[in-house]
Amino acid sequence: MKFAIDLAKRATGQTSPNPVVGSVVVKNGEIVGFGAHLRAGEAHAEVNAIQMAGVDKANGSTVYVTLEPCSHFGKTPPCSDLLIQSQVSRVVIASTDPNPLVAGKGIEKLRKAGIEVDLGVCEEEALALNQVFFHHIKTGKPFVTLKTAASLDGKTATHTNESRWITGPDARLDVHQYRHQHDAILVGVGTVLADDPSLDTRLPNGGKNPIRIILDSHLRTPLNSKVLTDGKAPTWIVTGSKPDLEKVAALEEKEGIKVLTLPMEKVEVNALLSLLGEEGITSLFIEGGATVNGSFLKEKAIQQVITYIAPKLIGGKGAPTLVGGEGFATMDEVVELEIKEVTKMGPDLKIVSAPKLDERR
Amino acid sequence: MKFAIDLAKRATGQTSPNPVVGSVVVKNGEIVGFGAHLRAGEAHAEVNAIQMAGVDKANGSTVYVTLEPCSHFGKTPPCSDLLIQSQVSRVVIASTDPNPLVAGKGIEKLRKAGIEVDLGVCEEEALALNQVFFHHIKTGKPFVTLKTAASLDGKTATHTNESRWITGPDARLDVHQYRHQHDAILVGVGTVLADDPSLDTRLPNGGKNPIRIILDSHLRTPLNSKVLTDGKAPTWIVTGSKPDLEKVAALEEKEGIKVLTLPMEKVEVNALLSLLGEEGITSLFIEGGATVNGSFLKEKAIQQVITYIAPKLIGGKGAPTLVGGEGFATMDEVVELEIKEVTKMGPDLKIVSAPKLDERR
Amino acid sequence: MKFAIDLAKRATGQTSPNPVVGSVVVKNGEIVGFGAHLRAGEAHAEVNAIQMAGVDKANGSTVYVTLEPCSHFGKTPPCSDLLIQSQVSRVVIASTDPNPLVAGKGIEKLRKAGIEVDLGVCEEEALALNQVFFHHIKTGKPFVTLKTAASLDGKTATHTNESRWITGPDARLDVHQYRHQHDAILVGVGTVLADDPSLDTRLPNGGKNPIRIILDSHLRTPLNSKVLTDGKAPTWIVTGSKPDLEKVAALEEKEGIKVLTLPMEKVEVNALLSLLGEEGITSLFIEGGATVNGSFLKEKAIQQVITYIAPKLIGGKGAPTLVGGEGFATMDEVVELEIKEVTKMGPDLKIVSAPKLDERR
Amino acid sequence: MKFAIDLAKRATGQTSPNPVVGSVVVKNGEIVGFGAHLRAGEAHAEVNAIQMAGVDKANGSTVYVTLEPCSHFGKTPPCSDLLIQSQVSRVVIASTDPNPLVAGKGIEKLRKAGIEVDLGVCEEEALALNQVFFHHIKTGKPFVTLKTAASLDGKTATHTNESRWITGPDARLDVHQYRHQHDAILVGVGTVLADDPSLDTRLPNGGKNPIRIILDSHLRTPLNSKVLTDGKAPTWIVTGSKPDLEKVAALEEKEGIKVLTLPMEKVEVNALLSLLGEEGITSLFIEGGATVNGSFLKEKAIQQVITYIAPKLIGGKGAPTLVGGEGFATMDEVVELEIKEVTKMGPDLKIVSAPKLDERR
Ligand SMILES: [Zn+2]
Ligand SMILES: [Zn+2]
Ligand SMILES: [Zn+2]
Ligand SMILES: [Zn+2]
Repeated sequence: MKFAIDLAKRATGQTSPNPVVGSVVVKNGEIVGFGAHLRAGEAHAEVNAIQMAGVDKANGSTVYVTLEPCSHFGKTPPCSDLLIQSQVSRVVIASTDPNPLVAGKGIEKLRKAGIEVDLGVCEEEALALNQVFFHHIKTGKPFVTLKTAASLDGKTATHTNESRWITGPDARLDVHQYRHQHDAILVGVGTVLADDPSLDTRLPNGGKNPIRIILDSHLRTPLNSKVLTDGKAPTWIVTGSKPDLEKVAALEEKEGIKVLTLPMEKVEVNALLSLLGEEGITSLFIEGGATVNGSFLKEKAIQQVITYIAPKLIGGKGAPTLVGGEGFATMDEVVELEIKEVTKMGPDLKIVSAPKLDERR
Repeated sequence: MKFAIDLAKRATGQTSPNPVVGSVVVKNGEIVGFGAHLRAGEAHAEVNAIQMAGVDKANGSTVYVTLEPCSHFGKTPPCSDLLIQSQVSRVVIASTDPNPLVAGKGIEKLRKAGIEVDLGVCEEEALALNQVFFHHIKTGKPFVTLKTAASLDGKTATHTNESRWITGPDARLDVHQYRHQHDAILVGVGTVLADDPSLDTRLPNGGKNPIRIILDSHLRTPLNSKVLTDGKAPTWIVTGSKPDLEKVAALEEKEGIKVLTLPMEKVEVNALLSLLGEEGITSLFIEGGATVNGSFLKEKAIQQVITYIAPKLIGGKGAPTLVGGEGFATMDEVVELEIKEVTKMGPDLKIVSAPKLDERR
Repeated sequence: MKFAIDLAKRATGQTSPNPVVGSVVVKNGEIVGFGAHLRAGEAHAEVNAIQMAGVDKANGSTVYVTLEPCSHFGKTPPCSDLLIQSQVSRVVIASTDPNPLVAGKGIEKLRKAGIEVDLGVCEEEALALNQVFFHHIKTGKPFVTLKTAASLDGKTATHTNESRWITGPDARLDVHQYRHQHDAILVGVGTVLADDPSLDTRLPNGGKNPIRIILDSHLRTPLNSKVLTDGKAPTWIVTGSKPDLEKVAALEEKEGIKVLTLPMEKVEVNALLSLLGEEGITSLFIEGGATVNGSFLKEKAIQQVITYIAPKLIGGKGAPTLVGGEGFATMDEVVELEIKEVTKMGPDLKIVSAPKLDERR
Repeated sequence: MKFAIDLAKRATGQTSPNPVVGSVVVKNGEIVGFGAHLRAGEAHAEVNAIQMAGVDKANGSTVYVTLEPCSHFGKTPPCSDLLIQSQVSRVVIASTDPNPLVAGKGIEKLRKAGIEVDLGVCEEEALALNQVFFHHIKTGKPFVTLKTAASLDGKTATHTNESRWITGPDARLDVHQYRHQHDAILVGVGTVLADDPSLDTRLPNGGKNPIRIILDSHLRTPLNSKVLTDGKAPTWIVTGSKPDLEKVAALEEKEGIKVLTLPMEKVEVNALLSLLGEEGITSLFIEGGATVNGSFLKEKAIQQVITYIAPKLIGGKGAPTLVGGEGFATMDEVVELEIKEVTKMGPDLKIVSAPKLDERR
């Protein structure tokens, strides 16, 4: 199972909106096949593994799989049927399907066919692999990761707004790794107006560009901004209930640009997340300025926080900080996190944290 | 020498304004005596070590000492004379005296008396032991440590100024360790007005209270504030050139309270540090609010930064941050640090950093 | 490449006489296929990986493979042809083929077809994966691992020859892991006479039984011994040039039993190894008694030594020891090893060592 | 207390037959004095520590000491009286005195004088410091450490008895560290005859030579052997009940040589150990050959085993091994050890082990 989980891990970031799944087929103590689900629409992990094993070897084998085999017809026929046809004798499953509609059905099918099914091996690890997918299935909203980078005194720029190169190249490369792994990246229109970023993924070996989502209640995104013109990935402009229709038309004329309208004048975080979830966005990476960060914080709509700290002191009462907005009034209300991981990245520090369990929504 | 350095380390924080020094006497491969300098005015390390060894064993022995033996009459007679009288045959020294007036004189004296002298063993470690002392000797100013504690988003309180218990008990205990080791602690009058702290050291086994220094250009410190009334340690009020003399009188009437007047209207950091250095303060621990922190930063008058980060998100454009004041305008001017140490302290993180060498003054 | 090496590692012990090989296909920064060579006669790693990727994705992809793709028709068509047909654009290879007849030919073919080929990435790790295979190819002999287990005072039994349970269950399980990974296991007839072992692999998840090789110059192996009757794996009896032909006939009558005759009266180690190499044995695990161990040592015909040490003192001038035979006369002649790994195994210690480079044959 | 234990550790090997003891005096959270017992006959740890503190500071202080302060007049007045006179207010003790005659008396005295006494802080560590001393006090015999060095196949020499440089310089230096720390070193006369060793301590910084004890039932030690002539340390020849009196006379004529006669014809291990214990030997380091090692093993008279393993294979049925003698007949009887520590020493391995608790005598 350890190997199956390793295989699943390798596919992290490329299977959305599907979960990552790994599978290994063992017969007489030997590995006879292995596979992973590599991309939505393509073969499931069990299919790849059984295919590598071949008909003869699959017969009578034990199949390890990190997630309950599917039982319904999707883009591919159900894996539980394949396992039954292949006459495997035992299936070991790390975690059941979180989708309440299908949970347990694959297992039931296998057992009815006389296949021995073992559950819960390495469950915690398998759940961690797909926390994004499970969050999306359960809540209908994307898993939100807030990324911030600041100096040791919590500033994101000098009081004159100079901010280039706060963190070093290692930390910046790490950010691109996250972009690669997320379905979508979100900024406020303020960031577009200030920096005109392209929000793409720049990794040594390429990588996938996330969909770019701009919070823009008043449709101020310039028509010549990079996110609207460079064609590197789709860009979605999210706006409120009374948009300037002329502007909407101008935007939607462009290829790859979509305007999403929310039924309230000013974009609300929860409505936004539900809308994105429906559109198939399972993971959202927020690289917003202080105001955007503040809105998500206020709604406690954050599942993970990545903080890069550069060992610098900038100072200045007027220097911009990480999270703005209104903020919480009392210490009882603030979002309590747990530090999961601290890593030195070149001169900088990376802190990964997540809301404490009772704070998660 | 390793043992001598260990002994010196044990005395850290209790020898000011003297350096910590350790010494070990070895004869025929056996340790026959060891000692440390434990408190200003008391026996030097070599004296304690030679005394433990006794006359017979000291004769012909090798003496390890972390700092060049003194050659002048201070509160105690010079150690180099004692070593010569004791007829030791060899002295191994980790670091020479940084005081340009005496550097090398002790060594010269020993060599003239026919004693073999070896230098530079474990020098780096020995210098690190006394970085405070050496800084003070060289610059005439105290070694300044800036302590800050903030949430992961760089806030020190909510926008309504609620700040209790940002960090947990482990981090707070650690702060008291630093107070114990410092000659003086400094805050602005704003902190006194807001919190009325006593700024003392609370450790399980007692500990030494630092002198309390209040930056108070307009003598607003209330006469009934704890720092003026609890008698736990001396309190020095630092003010500008035109103080209200009546207030000065009222303050100085109190026992243990001293008013220091600087020759400028508003307290300036460099003048302040020179004054404190003259008054024998070798190490200064700054627990100021954002404004005080900002003044020290602006002058780049910081030798060490201790940052406690609590895994919380507070948010709020108006929430107070770590370092205020004017701040630097461009990224070229900001103080570049190097991270020396990262420690998990209960739920919190402690980051020790220091200005890069070419930034240190 | 790291992933490809991991995949190859997973197949360790099940591909003999073939090397372990792993392969990963990457396109646009995403993994689109991966595979390993799982068993001699079955698909090569590249075939499995390309098949998982599919025609479309393989086209224009980068293929990582731990060993130079083959260029000749074996049980399967040459992988270099497959890579060319699949129109991959780049192949990254960790180590070239050690077989002098084919080395470089696969690479040449790929380059002629206009495919970019990069060599030497993670070469050392890739070579370590297949040290057994490479040794066999280069020398025509199996890679020999000597396994011994003794008390802290180097005894393998008491002077009355009681030896049960010298090491604990963890060490014994570890031995079975080695049996699983070796083509053949070798003991002297003395061991068969004394203990009547079955020399099979007992692991929680099954495992492969090695071929059992008995050194038996005078054909004293009892016809009812387990290695001749339990049918768990083939058993080869190795004997000298003048065997009792009646006994040979009686032995060969049994299913799975083969008698190998060497052209000298008493079995010689080097002749034996060449014969086994020709018979396709690439790795040999020696669990012999002192005499057998001594013969291999005398010829310096050992590539790896696994020593289990039980924290016991047995004592006794007459107690049997690890390595007997004649031994070396002077310290200049002894086999110098290098310790590669020391592991605590329950109460026992496991030491993995290998002859120093200039001692290896 | 950690510091007191560190101080005691520094004196390891130089205080025999006394235990190592460390002491620290603390007042108001500051260290005001510290000391250790450095050599039998000299000041006890508490005396050194109180002396460094001085009368004023000792008054009202807390004294940490690793062993119960003595209550009887020995070479120095009782420490418990000194602590009472010094008016310390609290004494923290790590371990009580193992000597049944005095155990608890020092504590009683202190408590009667109104001093607060705390027991058992870091007790395990403090006991480990003095395992030798405690063993001697309880059993009247020295603590026996068996040192052996062998090749990976348990040989101490080739079959022609060549044994030079089995282990490398790091391991050999480590042996001298042990010699320095032991009261006496023991070999059989066979070793003297074969190698004519001087059995002294050769460390970069000198070190103490142990008393040399030769097991010599028939007084075969040559009069011109190094141990009888080099004068580096006393040499004791242990012989049986009917020695050749002329030879005894010739031996005892030499300076520093003593002949010990046991009341049985052939030296018996237990009688020997009792005799050595009475003579004040608290720790015995056995560097004997296989026969001597075998005698101690047979009597299970070993408290610690130091094994150096050189990564060499020597082989040879006739090559000498670590432990000879008769040995145990069944695995039930053998001495079961526990591995305490494994260290790489240059190319070699050092294993420290000790009999399991229920095996210790
Ligand atoms: Zn499926
Ligand atoms: Zn001095
Ligand atoms: Zn191939
Ligand atoms: Zn005492």
